[in-house]
Amino acid sequence: MYDGIKGFAEVYPEEMAAYREVIDTVEDTARGYGFREIETPAMESAEMYIDKSGEEIVEELYAFEDKGGRHVALTPELTPTVARMVAGRSQELAKPIKWFSTRPFWRYEEPQQGRFREFYQTNVDIFGASDPAADAEILAFGADTLTGLGLTADDFEFRISHRDILGELLRSFDGDVDVRNAIRAVDKSEKVDRNEYLRLLEEAGLGGDQAETFVDLLAAGNDDLDELVAFTDSVEPAVENLQAVLSAAADYGVREFCDVSLETARGLDYYTGVVFECFDAEGEISRAIFGGGRYDDLIESYGGPEMPAVGVAPGVMNSTLPLLLKRAGVWPDEEFTTDYYVLQVGDTRPVAAGIARELRERGHIVEGDVEGRGFGAQLDYADSINAETVVIVGEQDLANDELTIKEMESGDQIQVPVEAFPGEHNRPTIGDFR
Amino acid sequence: MYDGIKGFAEVYPEEMAAYREVIDTVEDTARGYGFREIETPAMESAEMYIDKSGEEIVEELYAFEDKGGRHVALTPELTPTVARMVAGRSQELAKPIKWFSTRPFWRYEEPQQGRFREFYQTNVDIFGASDPAADAEILAFGADTLTGLGLTADDFEFRISHRDILGELLRSFDGDVDVRNAIRAVDKSEKVDRNEYLRLLEEAGLGGDQAETFVDLLAAGNDDLDELVAFTDSVEPAVENLQAVLSAAADYGVREFCDVSLETARGLDYYTGVVFECFDAEGEISRAIFGGGRYDDLIESYGGPEMPAVGVAPGVMNSTLPLLLKRAGVWPDEEFTTDYYVLQVGDTRPVAAGIARELRERGHIVEGDVEGRGFGAQLDYADSINAETVVIVGEQDLANDELTIKEMESGDQIQVPVEAFPGEHNRPTIGDFR
Repeated sequence: MYDGIKGFAEVYPEEMAAYREVIDTVEDTARGYGFREIETPAMESAEMYIDKSGEEIVEELYAFEDKGGRHVALTPELTPTVARMVAGRSQELAKPIKWFSTRPFWRYEEPQQGRFREFYQTNVDIFGASDPAADAEILAFGADTLTGLGLTADDFEFRISHRDILGELLRSFDGDVDVRNAIRAVDKSEKVDRNEYLRLLEEAGLGGDQAETFVDLLAAGNDDLDELVAFTDSVEPAVENLQAVLSAAADYGVREFCDVSLETARGLDYYTGVVFECFDAEGEISRAIFGGGRYDDLIESYGGPEMPAVGVAPGVMNSTLPLLLKRAGVWPDEEFTTDYYVLQVGDTRPVAAGIARELRERGHIVEGDVEGRGFGAQLDYADSINAETVVIVGEQDLANDELTIKEMESGDQIQVPVEAFPGEHNRPTIGDFR
Repeated sequence: MYDGIKGFAEVYPEEMAAYREVIDTVEDTARGYGFREIETPAMESAEMYIDKSGEEIVEELYAFEDKGGRHVALTPELTPTVARMVAGRSQELAKPIKWFSTRPFWRYEEPQQGRFREFYQTNVDIFGASDPAADAEILAFGADTLTGLGLTADDFEFRISHRDILGELLRSFDGDVDVRNAIRAVDKSEKVDRNEYLRLLEEAGLGGDQAETFVDLLAAGNDDLDELVAFTDSVEPAVENLQAVLSAAADYGVREFCDVSLETARGLDYYTGVVFECFDAEGEISRAIFGGGRYDDLIESYGGPEMPAVGVAPGVMNSTLPLLLKRAGVWPDEEFTTDYYVLQVGDTRPVAAGIARELRERGHIVEGDVEGRGFGAQLDYADSINAETVVIVGEQDLANDELTIKEMESGDQIQVPVEAFPGEHNRPTIGDFR
């Protein structure tokens, strides 16, 4: 027996039915906001990531040389791909461009609970809108998705930061600060102790006192953003932008899910404005559920036009979101449902098949015998797939132009004329013939 | 600008909307037959294919060594994966096991019209049923899918062969025939001239006269299978099996789509019984649209139990099926649809956002301004996304507790009280307020 590959999940039907409900909820919510579905390739030039996404992602790439000598990588995230697609048709497309897609991504990380090497995300992005309302619409989509899945404000929170607030604060200090590395230090701040955090900031060029001041400023800013403006005027436009996003989020009815948390910097280098991550409000799941933010420079960096962008990417399968749904007790509890089993006894297949076909044409889930089984074995199978109604097509009944309809839950059954079933009924049950 | 990878498609929204309709039709048809959705990994041990699927597929693998030193391959097809999954839970699962899944596969082939290196298939399989009715149900699913997409018997045909008919005929000749290679020769017969076909058969161990006889027998068998039984009794069980499948297909209402075509051998080695391919009945598209068949030995070969299996895999995206749908004039002609655009003029976002939310909760597609645009620019955008109704929320109207509803097609508009919209209406239009 060949084993599956470590970190790659197989999903059997009952579990998949739950995932399907999650994915449908996420996608239907996106459609409701006018996001349009796209499909994207699973493979890109490895250089696209090596040049743009920073070290962290490169170490995790599934990269290799294909038979044509191309240095390729399985896509670890959608953003660079979708940025290229927007850049390629930026003239023709009406702005804002609002796209979504659900598909797998691959990262060579150490698997752990809720983290797989192959995982599914629904990416949801707005291109061509720089207004804070666009950032807020992304937050609103994210919050609506989670409440649509049954979560409440007690279950999750969006921790919101702003790259320009961090950048301007860092640049306000004298000296030669490497802003990119300092922001990476901020991103790690929750995972390391304070001394290590300070050390990483000093490594990025802050003096010891400056690092202390910076860390304290972020904490103060979380309670009152005006404290930051009092420290340095240069941060004012970014603070106003964050406040405008929060104000729009209030208009959109999702302010209650949003907390300012300046330390939530996100790892990827390409973010430019508001960034956020969704967390378990009860803290039981320690890692972020998903995240997103604004990346206004990325499309231009791909040779496209100036094109502001903001997006989010809930992980819908093989990810942390299912852990949160289970923790909160709202994981969809799906089981097999089957509307009809058409049971044939003796040489009655033409009639049985015709009935099955008519029921399927009405949109129902209908199974019949494909194994030449007897009455009892067919009834057992019908039971195992939770068939609601069994239509028994027997030779003797047929000789009298009759069928038997059996309601599985009650065990009640009734004989009906062949021509009356399904007849005019859209979803005939035993009750229609009593 | 980084280019996409050769043979990997990008799909923009209008085209994706058509694909989504195709995929939904295929999946809904599968669900109607009681197939249950699963999800499977994109990567497997390369050895799984090298050992099992024959040379042809191995040359086309995207295979590489991962960072953990595993020799892996992107899945070129689903069957070996799903065989392992069935083998892994064969005790617990009620038979027949009926599964489907839609996902991308990858083959390093030369791209041409309708052939991509990344393509999407919906795999539909029945495990644990050896009865001819199972083969016929797979044919019925395939035919229902195509008629569901708008095709008719004038548009497509299933060419049906049987591996055991070919095998028994080949074994009936004296001498040392390599059945596997001879069947590969049959599979190529439509692509090469008769001399080359005969040469390939001789290479597989048939004598010159035997090869001629064999080729003529297949042609005769296509018209009358009993001709084959007259030639050798050993072929009788296989002929009876094929006839039973065709008889069940008749009961299932899809016999008209099926032609016996013994030369349709299919390339993969693991097939054991009925095999078939779907072709353009008008011959404009020369390659097969998709195919399937019975593979009764594969699961046992993975260390699982004896487990008969039969399946089919329509290529739903980046494949030949869209070519056939376009040729037949039934490719879904989709365009952007938007139910409502909620237009805000002045400082009216809280009210506009509340209306948008209420309309989305009713299941509609609703967009609003996320760019701080003026009246005219918003109306142009609403037009560009084919908004059916525009709800204008203006400061002056609001001062009178009113909104304006504009029907975009006619240009008609009407003022309504704020509290009346959307009110009790599930999908309010201007007609509800005249």
